Amino acid sequence: MLGLLAFGGALPVAVARAGAPHVVTFEGVATQLAPTSGAAQRFETLGAVFDELRAAGVDRLVLAGALTRPAFDPARLDAVTADLLPGLMAAMHGGDDGLLRHVIAMFEGQGFAVIGAHEVVPELTATPGLLAGPDPDAATEADMTRALAILAALGPLDVGQGAVVSGGLCLGIETLQGTDAMLRFVAATPAGLKPEGGVLVKAPKPGQDLRVDMPAIGPDTVRAAAGAGLSAIVVAAGQVLLLDRAALLAAAGDAGITLLARAI
Amino acid sequence: MLGLLAFGGALPVAVARAGAPHVVTFEGVATQLAPTSGAAQRFETLGAVFDELRAAGVDRLVLAGALTRPAFDPARLDAVTADLLPGLMAAMHGGDDGLLRHVIAMFEGQGFAVIGAHEVVPELTATPGLLAGPDPDAATEADMTRALAILAALGPLDVGQGAVVSGGLCLGIETLQGTDAMLRFVAATPAGLKPEGGVLVKAPKPGQDLRVDMPAIGPDTVRAAAGAGLSAIVVAAGQVLLLDRAALLAAAGDAGITLLARAI
Repeated sequence: MLGLLAFGGALPVAVARAGAPHVVTFEGVATQLAPTSGAAQRFETLGAVFDELRAAGVDRLVLAGALTRPAFDPARLDAVTADLLPGLMAAMHGGDDGLLRHVIAMFEGQGFAVIGAHEVVPELTATPGLLAGPDPDAATEADMTRALAILAALGPLDVGQGAVVSGGLCLGIETLQGTDAMLRFVAATPAGLKPEGGVLVKAPKPGQDLRVDMPAIGPDTVRAAAGAGLSAIVVAAGQVLLLDRAALLAAAGDAGITLLARAI
Repeated sequence: MLGLLAFGGALPVAVARAGAPHVVTFEGVATQLAPTSGAAQRFETLGAVFDELRAAGVDRLVLAGALTRPAFDPARLDAVTADLLPGLMAAMHGGDDGLLRHVIAMFEGQGFAVIGAHEVVPELTATPGLLAGPDPDAATEADMTRALAILAALGPLDVGQGAVVSGGLCLGIETLQGTDAMLRFVAATPAGLKPEGGVLVKAPKPGQDLRVDMPAIGPDTVRAAAGAGLSAIVVAAGQVLLLDRAALLAAAGDAGITLLARAI
């Protein structure tokens, strides 16, 4: 049986549609899905979450959707969660990556195999090839190669899910603020400094656990890239979520943006 | 005899004060210095420039100050410049770095040894040590180490004269738009995402020719770093220009910003 911890946005909906899972939701975390049991769970009572999943016969588990760090009331802790809490607190100091790795290990320690949403819904990611827009020209290929080299150099340092290169010049490297912030920064490049066209490359960092933390692009990314004067978006095949795929491909077509998946 | 091609800003003034050079200026390029000959030169008549420098006994030559690509009237070319033009045009396709390397080679081909402004005025750069503000704490040291690792990884790719790290998180990597644009980007980081403090590290890329193209910081850099909530600025000793040094150190003192030079 597939289990789904459903958080915000369209991703858990796609998983639910494809995988017919047992759905668990949480109080205070907006989601478009209803809990299979009829009642939302709380993060303070993970013992009850584990019990519900086991009772439903869940063996594989997907954690999907947008989750801001939830409010947490220590007075409501159950014994299982109280035992897990010191490890969770320590993991938080390791940043979001460390916390996610710890949460995965926690569920796997209870006998649930954590898998990625894209393993349930393969069409959430792309196979290598042209997805939309015109074939890349030589300049686009060169910019793409340079952006990929920049991301490869930064990967071991756990920086850089994205980069923008135009006319051989690097105009943006994604940092904590994310892709949209980077694209707004590129769009604000003073006139005369930015060559025509250019490429946004999106790929995971080597340390990322793609089961719960995958880079993503959506229709807004395409519009932001077009707004920054770029002519192409390249994603790592099988490793970047394509959110709202139909709208994404339509937006690329409308903007005349080349959308390409590359095996990386 | 020292020669000085004087462009905009305070840097050629500092060179003139320290080195008593023969000063050449150019029509259409604002500079605070007067030409020694009494008349400005033009980029279309480099033959006349070479003749003037030779007649003045110039053997070492500094190119200093801010130079936007000047207007260029092909009708006014002299024979020497016409001969040099194809090479210059080709070099322009190599970007600013390629153009600068070509210009240096052009003057050296005429028998003038091109040297850096900092070789005439050593106090334009810093020797290793604390220049202003409090001693760096352990968190600052850790952020500095991480920023330097990021720049070192990018160096071979000819990207990154600067990076910002705060609480171990990379918040900015300098691209074509320059340090001030990066600091504005960091300052715009959404509240809650940026940890307290943080470090700006400035260092040259391995490919940079420090004789004509050196990273620089000035009082405005310090104010922008303070505005972005950073607590320290680290420069590569001997490899980053400290513009308007007295005002720079005063600005760091006023803002409580640690200013440090490191041997890199």
